[in-house]
Amino acid sequence: MKTIPVAELTRFVIQVLEHYGVSAEDAKTTADVLVTTDSWGIGTHGTKLLGLYAKRLKAGGLKAKGRPKVSREGPSWAVVDADKAIGMVGSVFAMKTAMSKAGRTGIAIVTVHNSCHFGAAGYYAYLAARQGMIGLAMANDTPTVAAPGSKGPVFGTNPIAFGAPGGSHAPVVLDMATAVVAGGKITQALAAGQPIPEGWIVDFEGRPTTDGKLFAHSASLLPVAGYKGYGMAAMIEILSGVLSGSAMRGEVGLWGHDLVNPSDHGHAFIAIDPHMIAGRAFSRRMDEMIDGVKASPVVEGMESLFMPGEIEHNKRVAALQGGIPLGDDVVESLRATAAEASLVLASSLAASD
Amino acid sequence: MKTIPVAELTRFVIQVLEHYGVSAEDAKTTADVLVTTDSWGIGTHGTKLLGLYAKRLKAGGLKAKGRPKVSREGPSWAVVDADKAIGMVGSVFAMKTAMSKAGRTGIAIVTVHNSCHFGAAGYYAYLAARQGMIGLAMANDTPTVAAPGSKGPVFGTNPIAFGAPGGSHAPVVLDMATAVVAGGKITQALAAGQPIPEGWIVDFEGRPTTDGKLFAHSASLLPVAGYKGYGMAAMIEILSGVLSGSAMRGEVGLWGHDLVNPSDHGHAFIAIDPHMIAGRAFSRRMDEMIDGVKASPVVEGMESLFMPGEIEHNKRVAALQGGIPLGDDVVESLRATAAEASLVLASSLAASD
Repeated sequence: MKTIPVAELTRFVIQVLEHYGVSAEDAKTTADVLVTTDSWGIGTHGTKLLGLYAKRLKAGGLKAKGRPKVSREGPSWAVVDADKAIGMVGSVFAMKTAMSKAGRTGIAIVTVHNSCHFGAAGYYAYLAARQGMIGLAMANDTPTVAAPGSKGPVFGTNPIAFGAPGGSHAPVVLDMATAVVAGGKITQALAAGQPIPEGWIVDFEGRPTTDGKLFAHSASLLPVAGYKGYGMAAMIEILSGVLSGSAMRGEVGLWGHDLVNPSDHGHAFIAIDPHMIAGRAFSRRMDEMIDGVKASPVVEGMESLFMPGEIEHNKRVAALQGGIPLGDDVVESLRATAAEASLVLASSLAASD
Repeated sequence: MKTIPVAELTRFVIQVLEHYGVSAEDAKTTADVLVTTDSWGIGTHGTKLLGLYAKRLKAGGLKAKGRPKVSREGPSWAVVDADKAIGMVGSVFAMKTAMSKAGRTGIAIVTVHNSCHFGAAGYYAYLAARQGMIGLAMANDTPTVAAPGSKGPVFGTNPIAFGAPGGSHAPVVLDMATAVVAGGKITQALAAGQPIPEGWIVDFEGRPTTDGKLFAHSASLLPVAGYKGYGMAAMIEILSGVLSGSAMRGEVGLWGHDLVNPSDHGHAFIAIDPHMIAGRAFSRRMDEMIDGVKASPVVEGMESLFMPGEIEHNKRVAALQGGIPLGDDVVESLRATAAEASLVLASSLAASD
């Protein structure tokens, strides 16, 4: 565990991306996604992945100078061709496009093709929420998740996130995979030498197993809550994949393994302007709803219930003050990334253990 | 178990509603929601509830001549005042309004206040899907579901449904409560004298229990998948309740108990025009995606995977041919409803057992 100031980590990410030919603006956009995710305590989806993105930029699977553009649009919708740019660059562009359209019509949907892994879906929902909009973000991915009755993977972990401004409170943010856990949790457990709990994966015969090493070549994740997670994954595949013109299911590239070919992930972003729809009552009613939840009786040891996203928000507030605590796996990955690019790592991470 | 032709059950529902002063058109709308739900095999949310709606109409909790209307609107949004009409009447009106706006701008959201229990959320998603639109439907409800760490209920079972046209296949339809199960499943188990499985409910101290009789006065349902179901319930409360101006959380009336006062449930309906966004490729790509899923290897005893909603669709196809099989609880409820209104029950249900 190492702690690093937000600004220092951000600078390092930008430096790495610029080293691989990414523009200052796109590097800054990507750094904000990754560092915000780390500041929430979501180590699996933050700067730990920077090294992989860097390798893809070098190998051609990501286009450093890719310029996402709207290829077709209407009053409340657009289809974005992400031009093989870093997933975060196309995704921020798409969510901002959705927000701009929603600001005129009330709601908008923007789908994205020709993209890649976009990190934590929650970032894009939060991006909308912190500017007064309700946001939804989702993505398809290579199948790693079984369906009820399947002998192998059918859909990806297909994540979905929701964000809403919280009145005088922090934004309400939900970010969830439609699998029992994200694949990164298994990698993390394996790296830490920890066993996989029952109920996470099944082998390719559909039998439960706790052997994490079987994932993903001989075992699939389970969908969250059986048919519910399976149905949500289908919904997300339709909105992100079918509707966007991206790769679907098994066509989506293994972005962490095949570094040369674009993965062609699909995304969907929806923005809603709650102030246009509900007027000034919206913020007052959000406060009323949240205050009510926070006043609910809680079990011993808790002070009050956490709203969705509140734990992550609290971690971020602490990180902005005292730096982001990064797990050893993240620090190790950042050190390797620095070495690969012959860059000097942020001093607080380079220090000996 | 009794089997009744779709047309006969539909006629009976219309007759009952007209008896309580509902217009022919609104009775037909409501009957289609309830009978379609029964034809899917979802006995908890179909005509079994007709008797309760009838009692509310008689007692004043529902307004027989209620006329839902758009109270505020913009290019891609509207807020509907359901005027205390039957939940299905305001909900069908709202989803049709959303579809009409989405047909012009690509996507639209319509929220509803001053409504009541709307039955199965899946009906409204299916309504959109069978007319070539993607639909989302959701509703808030009286809190009966615990949150992680709570000592009592925090949100309602807050259901959400998604529907999409299936190309040459049946529509893809997901309908899920954000609780482990809908409350109706517990009532059903109690009525059948069956025990409640572990993991469904917790008492008001937050302790697991299998005593279904404690629900809902001294026990809460569990949210599906812990923080994920809790987060989804919050999302649905925001879209259906906060945004619509309806009652929120504990303000929502106990529609099955307090028959006199309007419950003021809130709903949200989103329609998306996939053909506007993706053109003719949409249907082809839906086929490609569904054909791929259906070709997945399956465990012994299955022929192929079911798409979300396919089991219900197959039941409906069979019901349209050979009649709807209704459980004893549904038949009993319909008999009581007929007696209460001094109406002659459909002959196939009135026959002695």
